[in-house]
Amino acid sequence: MHATGIIAEYNPFHNGHQYQINWVKEHFPATTLIIAMSGNYLQRGEPACFDKWVRAREALQAGADLVVEIPFGLCMQPADRFAQSGVAVLQQLGVENLVFGAEHSNYDFKDLAQKSQDLTWDYQQYNISYAALYQQAVKESVGFEITQPNDLLGLAYARAALTLAPTLNLVPIQRQAAGYHDQKLPTGGHIASATAIRQNIHEPDMVKKFVGAQTWMDIKQENSVTWTNLWPLLRYRLLTATPEQLATIYGMAEGIQYRMQEQLQLAPVSLDFDAWLKKVKTKRFTYTRLSRLALATVLNISTAEVEQAWAHPFVRILGFNRTGQKYLSTQKKK
Amino acid sequence: MHATGIIAEYNPFHNGHQYQINWVKEHFPATTLIIAMSGNYLQRGEPACFDKWVRAREALQAGADLVVEIPFGLCMQPADRFAQSGVAVLQQLGVENLVFGAEHSNYDFKDLAQKSQDLTWDYQQYNISYAALYQQAVKESVGFEITQPNDLLGLAYARAALTLAPTLNLVPIQRQAAGYHDQKLPTGGHIASATAIRQNIHEPDMVKKFVGAQTWMDIKQENSVTWTNLWPLLRYRLLTATPEQLATIYGMAEGIQYRMQEQLQLAPVSLDFDAWLKKVKTKRFTYTRLSRLALATVLNISTAEVEQAWAHPFVRILGFNRTGQKYLSTQKKK
Repeated sequence: MHATGIIAEYNPFHNGHQYQINWVKEHFPATTLIIAMSGNYLQRGEPACFDKWVRAREALQAGADLVVEIPFGLCMQPADRFAQSGVAVLQQLGVENLVFGAEHSNYDFKDLAQKSQDLTWDYQQYNISYAALYQQAVKESVGFEITQPNDLLGLAYARAALTLAPTLNLVPIQRQAAGYHDQKLPTGGHIASATAIRQNIHEPDMVKKFVGAQTWMDIKQENSVTWTNLWPLLRYRLLTATPEQLATIYGMAEGIQYRMQEQLQLAPVSLDFDAWLKKVKTKRFTYTRLSRLALATVLNISTAEVEQAWAHPFVRILGFNRTGQKYLSTQKKK
Repeated sequence: MHATGIIAEYNPFHNGHQYQINWVKEHFPATTLIIAMSGNYLQRGEPACFDKWVRAREALQAGADLVVEIPFGLCMQPADRFAQSGVAVLQQLGVENLVFGAEHSNYDFKDLAQKSQDLTWDYQQYNISYAALYQQAVKESVGFEITQPNDLLGLAYARAALTLAPTLNLVPIQRQAAGYHDQKLPTGGHIASATAIRQNIHEPDMVKKFVGAQTWMDIKQENSVTWTNLWPLLRYRLLTATPEQLATIYGMAEGIQYRMQEQLQLAPVSLDFDAWLKKVKTKRFTYTRLSRLALATVLNISTAEVEQAWAHPFVRILGFNRTGQKYLSTQKKK
């Protein structure tokens, strides 16, 4: 059996994702479509709006055959490591194609990956962020600047595939309309960014035309989760834990826990997650890096646990249809 | 200057406490009245209804001259250790009299203390609670049963004084009307138990006649705190901490943390603090012992921290009037 993979977060699943699945069905009619999806927590260090079971069902209803989870410790990572995790999961499931959206689907991602294969950068520059250092190193190796988020992610997939899945066929498809970080729903069309949909999640009628039936039902029926829900717990944790206890948390480095605690103790009780994070933020500890760190803190994820997950990778199945089930049983035999 | 001490929790301060203060003023007109009070958390392992500053103000308004805090780690203890803590604090402040309410003010507490001086009991009996073992040992040494809570506390004060403050004058006064654990407000009189007052704290008009002006204002204006407020935090802590991390908590013993976590994981999300505690309860781990343990857990108090507090006792001043201030300055010179 032939299989095609997509690495996704589906936060939540919307018409842009549906377009991608339809595209796969059209171009690879006989393929089994496997989604490697983040679980209850996302790559950027925040809770998913709906839990992984709800989002897996949305994908299955939309035409996916099998949905598996990218394990938490491997998912909540900078883009290049997230890409490695997704590619590794799909490779373990014997996927032949990797389909992904890109702002520039005309790029030859395999070629770009080879050019940037030996990419190194000095992570010890204390006044520049990881992401900025990475982009600069990419520019130097491929000869031009890659700035769009999905292009960068595509390159990261391609770079991961070079070592983890050298025979993987990379299939970039042109991203539609909506910008990745658009906050507002567009006035025309049926495709909006997941960000814009989440911003309007409490007004189901407004988002109806941008999502399928299952997601629309979930938006009406499920409680959506944001950092606002976790903030009282993180706040409590930071106020009661000792710096020594926080030092065991995955990603805690350079004594940043002192700053995390201090900025909370100094602030009024009304301070919210976003305002706190902006106070803690430095050039080295960016908003996203701190979000991941905050998530590891509130979930009490230790460095040892994440290292364990990297050392013993596993795949958790979230859902499948008949095709997916059949595919799994053939894979099992291998 | 002559000083009289009272060991109290004032949860909240009410007419029964006022009666006690008036009694002291009447019988020792020239004395400085010092209250050794528990802080934001009480001896029995629960949050005080109002914080320590609010309750200290209630006592000062009622005629106390100086209010000091029994340090947290020394306060959240079984009755005999709580008594030691209170007596030690008052002894450090040079108090001559200790006034306390008793169900039997006719008991000769000093004599009872001497008879039970060498009280020992086998704490290793795994099917009987600490309190039951203690009461049994008391009965054997003094020759009759002491069962009322304030009588037992009075004996504990007397026993603590034997070694910590041998010259301390013990002044038991007869407790008025209300039973210590009465849940209902009485229909007659002006004295109700603190328990009954807390039960009706959201109906200020009902409790008005049982409290003074300051407490009545606090009941109307302050947010009162119970385990219900702390429960989501404790729940979160128990769900995210490892058993190894919980083992460092003060009072954690015999692997009880596994049972604390298990009974939470097995239960529906709707389980409240009281229902959870009753599921965890055993003969050895009584309701009150578990409440203290739960409090140490939610506040992340380690064994090392409490041992530090016992080894380096200190007194925190919560409030005073002119008399109290003058008393403190004379004590400072000593």
